[in-house]
Amino acid sequence: MNVASSTIVPTEAVSSEGVVAAGVYVDGRRVASIAIDEASSWRGRPGHVVWIGLHEPSLAVLTSVQRQFHLHDLAIEDADHAHQRPKIEQYGDGLFIVARTAQLVGGSIAFGETHLFVGEGYLVSVRHGASTSYAPVRERCESCPRALARGEDYILYAILDFIVDNYSPVLETIQEEVETMEALVLANGMGRAQIERLYLLRRDLLRLRNAVGPLVEVCRRLEHDNLAMVRASMQPLFRDVTDHVKTIQEQIDSLREVLAFAFEASLLVGQAQETAVSKKLASWLAIIAVPTAIAGIYGMNFKHMPELHWEYGYYMVVGIIATTCSVLFWRFRRAGWL
Amino acid sequence: MNVASSTIVPTEAVSSEGVVAAGVYVDGRRVASIAIDEASSWRGRPGHVVWIGLHEPSLAVLTSVQRQFHLHDLAIEDADHAHQRPKIEQYGDGLFIVARTAQLVGGSIAFGETHLFVGEGYLVSVRHGASTSYAPVRERCESCPRALARGEDYILYAILDFIVDNYSPVLETIQEEVETMEALVLANGMGRAQIERLYLLRRDLLRLRNAVGPLVEVCRRLEHDNLAMVRASMQPLFRDVTDHVKTIQEQIDSLREVLAFAFEASLLVGQAQETAVSKKLASWLAIIAVPTAIAGIYGMNFKHMPELHWEYGYYMVVGIIATTCSVLFWRFRRAGWL
Amino acid sequence: MNVASSTIVPTEAVSSEGVVAAGVYVDGRRVASIAIDEASSWRGRPGHVVWIGLHEPSLAVLTSVQRQFHLHDLAIEDADHAHQRPKIEQYGDGLFIVARTAQLVGGSIAFGETHLFVGEGYLVSVRHGASTSYAPVRERCESCPRALARGEDYILYAILDFIVDNYSPVLETIQEEVETMEALVLANGMGRAQIERLYLLRRDLLRLRNAVGPLVEVCRRLEHDNLAMVRASMQPLFRDVTDHVKTIQEQIDSLREVLAFAFEASLLVGQAQETAVSKKLASWLAIIAVPTAIAGIYGMNFKHMPELHWEYGYYMVVGIIATTCSVLFWRFRRAGWL
Amino acid sequence: MNVASSTIVPTEAVSSEGVVAAGVYVDGRRVASIAIDEASSWRGRPGHVVWIGLHEPSLAVLTSVQRQFHLHDLAIEDADHAHQRPKIEQYGDGLFIVARTAQLVGGSIAFGETHLFVGEGYLVSVRHGASTSYAPVRERCESCPRALARGEDYILYAILDFIVDNYSPVLETIQEEVETMEALVLANGMGRAQIERLYLLRRDLLRLRNAVGPLVEVCRRLEHDNLAMVRASMQPLFRDVTDHVKTIQEQIDSLREVLAFAFEASLLVGQAQETAVSKKLASWLAIIAVPTAIAGIYGMNFKHMPELHWEYGYYMVVGIIATTCSVLFWRFRRAGWL
Amino acid sequence: MNVASSTIVPTEAVSSEGVVAAGVYVDGRRVASIAIDEASSWRGRPGHVVWIGLHEPSLAVLTSVQRQFHLHDLAIEDADHAHQRPKIEQYGDGLFIVARTAQLVGGSIAFGETHLFVGEGYLVSVRHGASTSYAPVRERCESCPRALARGEDYILYAILDFIVDNYSPVLETIQEEVETMEALVLANGMGRAQIERLYLLRRDLLRLRNAVGPLVEVCRRLEHDNLAMVRASMQPLFRDVTDHVKTIQEQIDSLREVLAFAFEASLLVGQAQETAVSKKLASWLAIIAVPTAIAGIYGMNFKHMPELHWEYGYYMVVGIIATTCSVLFWRFRRAGWL
Repeated sequence: MNVASSTIVPTEAVSSEGVVAAGVYVDGRRVASIAIDEASSWRGRPGHVVWIGLHEPSLAVLTSVQRQFHLHDLAIEDADHAHQRPKIEQYGDGLFIVARTAQLVGGSIAFGETHLFVGEGYLVSVRHGASTSYAPVRERCESCPRALARGEDYILYAILDFIVDNYSPVLETIQEEVETMEALVLANGMGRAQIERLYLLRRDLLRLRNAVGPLVEVCRRLEHDNLAMVRASMQPLFRDVTDHVKTIQEQIDSLREVLAFAFEASLLVGQAQETAVSKKLASWLAIIAVPTAIAGIYGMNFKHMPELHWEYGYYMVVGIIATTCSVLFWRFRRAGWL
Repeated sequence: MNVASSTIVPTEAVSSEGVVAAGVYVDGRRVASIAIDEASSWRGRPGHVVWIGLHEPSLAVLTSVQRQFHLHDLAIEDADHAHQRPKIEQYGDGLFIVARTAQLVGGSIAFGETHLFVGEGYLVSVRHGASTSYAPVRERCESCPRALARGEDYILYAILDFIVDNYSPVLETIQEEVETMEALVLANGMGRAQIERLYLLRRDLLRLRNAVGPLVEVCRRLEHDNLAMVRASMQPLFRDVTDHVKTIQEQIDSLREVLAFAFEASLLVGQAQETAVSKKLASWLAIIAVPTAIAGIYGMNFKHMPELHWEYGYYMVVGIIATTCSVLFWRFRRAGWL
Repeated sequence: MNVASSTIVPTEAVSSEGVVAAGVYVDGRRVASIAIDEASSWRGRPGHVVWIGLHEPSLAVLTSVQRQFHLHDLAIEDADHAHQRPKIEQYGDGLFIVARTAQLVGGSIAFGETHLFVGEGYLVSVRHGASTSYAPVRERCESCPRALARGEDYILYAILDFIVDNYSPVLETIQEEVETMEALVLANGMGRAQIERLYLLRRDLLRLRNAVGPLVEVCRRLEHDNLAMVRASMQPLFRDVTDHVKTIQEQIDSLREVLAFAFEASLLVGQAQETAVSKKLASWLAIIAVPTAIAGIYGMNFKHMPELHWEYGYYMVVGIIATTCSVLFWRFRRAGWL
Repeated sequence: MNVASSTIVPTEAVSSEGVVAAGVYVDGRRVASIAIDEASSWRGRPGHVVWIGLHEPSLAVLTSVQRQFHLHDLAIEDADHAHQRPKIEQYGDGLFIVARTAQLVGGSIAFGETHLFVGEGYLVSVRHGASTSYAPVRERCESCPRALARGEDYILYAILDFIVDNYSPVLETIQEEVETMEALVLANGMGRAQIERLYLLRRDLLRLRNAVGPLVEVCRRLEHDNLAMVRASMQPLFRDVTDHVKTIQEQIDSLREVLAFAFEASLLVGQAQETAVSKKLASWLAIIAVPTAIAGIYGMNFKHMPELHWEYGYYMVVGIIATTCSVLFWRFRRAGWL
Repeated sequence: MNVASSTIVPTEAVSSEGVVAAGVYVDGRRVASIAIDEASSWRGRPGHVVWIGLHEPSLAVLTSVQRQFHLHDLAIEDADHAHQRPKIEQYGDGLFIVARTAQLVGGSIAFGETHLFVGEGYLVSVRHGASTSYAPVRERCESCPRALARGEDYILYAILDFIVDNYSPVLETIQEEVETMEALVLANGMGRAQIERLYLLRRDLLRLRNAVGPLVEVCRRLEHDNLAMVRASMQPLFRDVTDHVKTIQEQIDSLREVLAFAFEASLLVGQAQETAVSKKLASWLAIIAVPTAIAGIYGMNFKHMPELHWEYGYYMVVGIIATTCSVLFWRFRRAGWL
């Protein structure tokens, strides 16, 4: 995953301990790539913003980051062992934000977590699990210094926007699969494979909803809560992210309902198929019963059975059998049983 | 779709870049058809209202409109690539409103989007996707200058009212189809075609609900939020739209529930049919078993079977078979199995 | 429907344009029957209350009423073409209230609408569709001048109370039908007729809930909102109506849930029946297979089949068949399959 | 039901018109048993509390009570014809409380109603329908004068606590029945009797929830609303009742969900049974088909069928039949079909 | 369960009446192990915190505790007979907190209850039913005097955190079982054992949700309500617990939904299996019908049946039978019926 840092932004200092990048920005331009230990001193200078990106950092690095920005113990603890719900928390004058990221890996959704520490003059991102690098965000921000110059809240916006944007391809892929499946289900009902896929899709969507749902609240608070960190002029940007998250959420809920509909439709299709098989079974049974019964009777060994001695008895009986069977067949077909 | 502008209001300036109409109104009367670039200067004059209608405009046109009315970047970005949830947003002293429109196209619902920019002295509508022209709205407004004279908030009302009104025929068509289907389902259960239709109706109604639902909030805010744009005297009008949207929403929810009931009823009808087929099958099997078993016995080749030598043995056996079968048939019929 | 006005309150002026009654009350006593055009002047006199009852009035009458009491255009528009959700709206110093009425007509619920305009010194009721006359309300009020003397808010209470009271017989009839049906369903499962009835009851209850639900809000606002129209001393009366509506709503919701339970129970009963039929089928098949197989074997034409030559072979074989079949029959019966 | 008053508290004045008991308390001790007509004068004396218990009283008694304590017309009307939702209402300086009581009578729940009028110096309880006497409450209160001395709000607490306590045995009985049933259902699926019982339990629990649900709000208001009647020091007591009601409600909701689970499990068990029967049916059919087909062939009357003349042909054929059937039987058994 | 106190913290005074431990702490260090009766005097000294742990104490002990800390009667009553919903209540200057604990015992969840009394200078924990000892909490706290020095609110936090932490292994075990089961269900549908397990898991999860749900509110109030007991600096700790509880709750809800999905998937799998069996049955029936019918015909005893005298008639017929059966078999297989 460090591909990004080595191939796209080769100037970043990538350490083995999980430091992807650490830079200082003035007026939207990077003025230095720094070591974690220097962060505090750079951050103090007016107009300077320190932006550090970590990927599954060692506890040592985390502790070092904590010292630099005076982060709260609990937040660092959370950032260390992941598995948090998306949330936003204010510790003193710093914000701690958790978001879940989603990616399609081999047909099912792989989730990751990103933890963000933001405060006056710094932003630290900590990625866990399956998650795309934020190198593209950094690149895009650096290519547009005017926007980046707005400070750490703009970086926060850029990362959240990137996370939310990345839900879309996941949902689109699922959407397409659902559409393929619904055509199939309506035509033939569900086989074992489709049932399994339906089940897994529902489970994945449930998890995705759990990942996305609490994010609405996070964005809403960034937009409305007059947090010291977020200047008024930035609030429309966060409102935009809120909107985007809500759209994603609506799509998830729609897909979930559509899958529930598909399940119910499939039950009906399956029931109809079962009935169709039963009707076919009953029809053929009825048709075959005719020669069986008649032949049985003329197979009896009674001494006195006059028909047996008729010259054309046999032909007559075969004729009756053939006619009756044909009539039955025709009637069943007309009734839609065959 | 530009039919409207060319045939009904032929005086409008329709450009290839998506400008349907752009006019200036004083006291409810159109005093000029203008180019986008002039909008700002007209808008500034007291008592003048600029009303611009766009249909999938080019980015150039949008940017030009933005310059004229100092619209927010994010709103323009939204208006450019559509796929927004219905919402209302205030940017400085302007409002940005998104609504989804619905039309029946070939039996299923086609959705469009309309974005509205409203501010002191101007209203810009941007249509995307399947959506009827707002030419009728413009026409109706122009034919009633006294109402139109009230300003841009009246135009806003007229357009929202028009959008909401257009949901009704869609719903009525679905309603009729549901009624036809429910009669069918209760009589014969569902075939493959009905199941598919039920499924698609449910999906369409879900989408319609997603389109209509957030609009309630939009209207409610226009009615209650004391937005600078909306004068107190106009609030009853928006309350009227709110009411209308709620009625639409209630109808959608009712239809959705009715379809769920239809699904359940269909499951029961299907189950009853399956059981009826099984009963028929069992009955005929029982009836046919009689000649088979008896004839089988008298078909055995034992040397010593006295009945075989009775003169009327054969007739007797055939009589017993016929009688037993008749009795069985009559009993099954009485029990409702046949 | 105008029966009421002609037979019960014969002094009312019933016009062909939908005027059922129009009277002026002082201290709870009717002092004059008036024409619509006079309403305004009567209403102005201190202590006088004008009470007008309309049934599907012509637009002319409505417009006349509007002029007399300065009603809002939108309210009159609503009152003209019905199909409104129950609601309460304040226009200036007047209230506009919409309620849905329900009656049982031929086993299914027929809905009507009543629109009420109330203001200082007047109340106008406009009935649409299936709805009982309010003549009984007028009669009851007139027979109790002390209560009526309290003014237009008392009349409003009396009418709302009457509307809500009229839901009860509808619900009771449905309740009785549900009870009959549930006994039937639990005993025999559902036939086509019961499924249809269940479906229609659920649909009707859904509509009834839609009619009653928003009325809770209407009554709640009359009770709590300190509307100019409603004196403090009258609020307990409206609280009483609120209570009544809530009871009705609870009954509807209970019935809806009970019907859902009945559906589920019916699915289980149906499943049990299907299984019972399958068990019967399997049992008989097994029993009949015995003579078929044995007789088949002794029906073979081998030259050397010693049993065929035994003197009591036939009797033995028939005995074996009879015994085996009896044992099978007894075992199936014991297992509850037959 | 008046057993309580005659056997347990024999000093109470029980009238034929529904007066169970009427006493005056000073410092928690009963100082007099009074007639309804004297209530007003006793109530006026400082430190005196009048406690009257009625059971389905005549209107005359109710009116008399109303006169003594100046109760509101609407409350008396409610108390007269029962069928109210649980609620709390303030009329002037008095409270009117309605609660539903529940008892198990012959396996299903019988509901009653208790109406309470409380005010400065008095409490009147009116019982309707199936409901236990409040004699035990009175007894317990009298045996603990220190608590009772706190006044009418303590009596109110004691009665509500008693009502809520009486829900518990009902719930416990249902709980036990549910546990018995779930064991049965999981073992054998549901028969007709179980389905009926499940249905009735769900209906009863629904009713119980309707009885208990609104009581939460009643208790919450007694705890929080700073009603004149309820002294601050008593609020913890009412909080205790609230807690108890919530526990009851949670139990009801749990039972309702568990019954829904049982329904779904039962559907699966039923489906599994049906499939098992079908598999058995198919297996036996296949096994029996072997002798039928083979014997049929050697039962044909062709002149030239060499096998028929083989000396051991018959034994061979019977052997083949026996072997094939055995193999089939063994394979079906291994596959779990038999 | 007292194992903990005797083996891990052997210095604790464990009494037969349910006292697990009672200690006094100053600056996070235990200065004395005390008897209950001394608690009050120790608690009064500045900087001293009394921490008492009880396990199903006798009423005598509870009463003694009550006297020492002036606890409210109702809280003591609750603590005596357990079966409370999780809640937080303020009595004067003390808090009373109820939480439910969960443990896996033999595959199903065993619930316990912990009641906590907290006030200035003291914390009393009362455990009921299946619940792990809080000895580990005490140990951990004592090993970290700096944290413990913060006082009784820190102890409260430590215990709540411990309770919530203990839900995790329960959930993880269930999670694993669900994953095993879902693989099984999707492959083979559900047998009796799986249905029972599914049912029990759903019931257990329901109970767990009931245990955990109200705890969110408890933690939220500790975090937000500015309770005298909880210093501002401790609120982030309680926010951390709230977060943890919410994560647990989300996991429970997810598992519940997943089980519901599994149920539905299982219904579909079952339906598919049933249909597959029916198809197999119908196919074999059709195949076997061929020899039966043909052999029946040539088994008839007509005098004049020319085919019977053909030299190769028999071989021809057997050939026809074999061919027809093979063709049928091949076609059924191709159609996926066999």
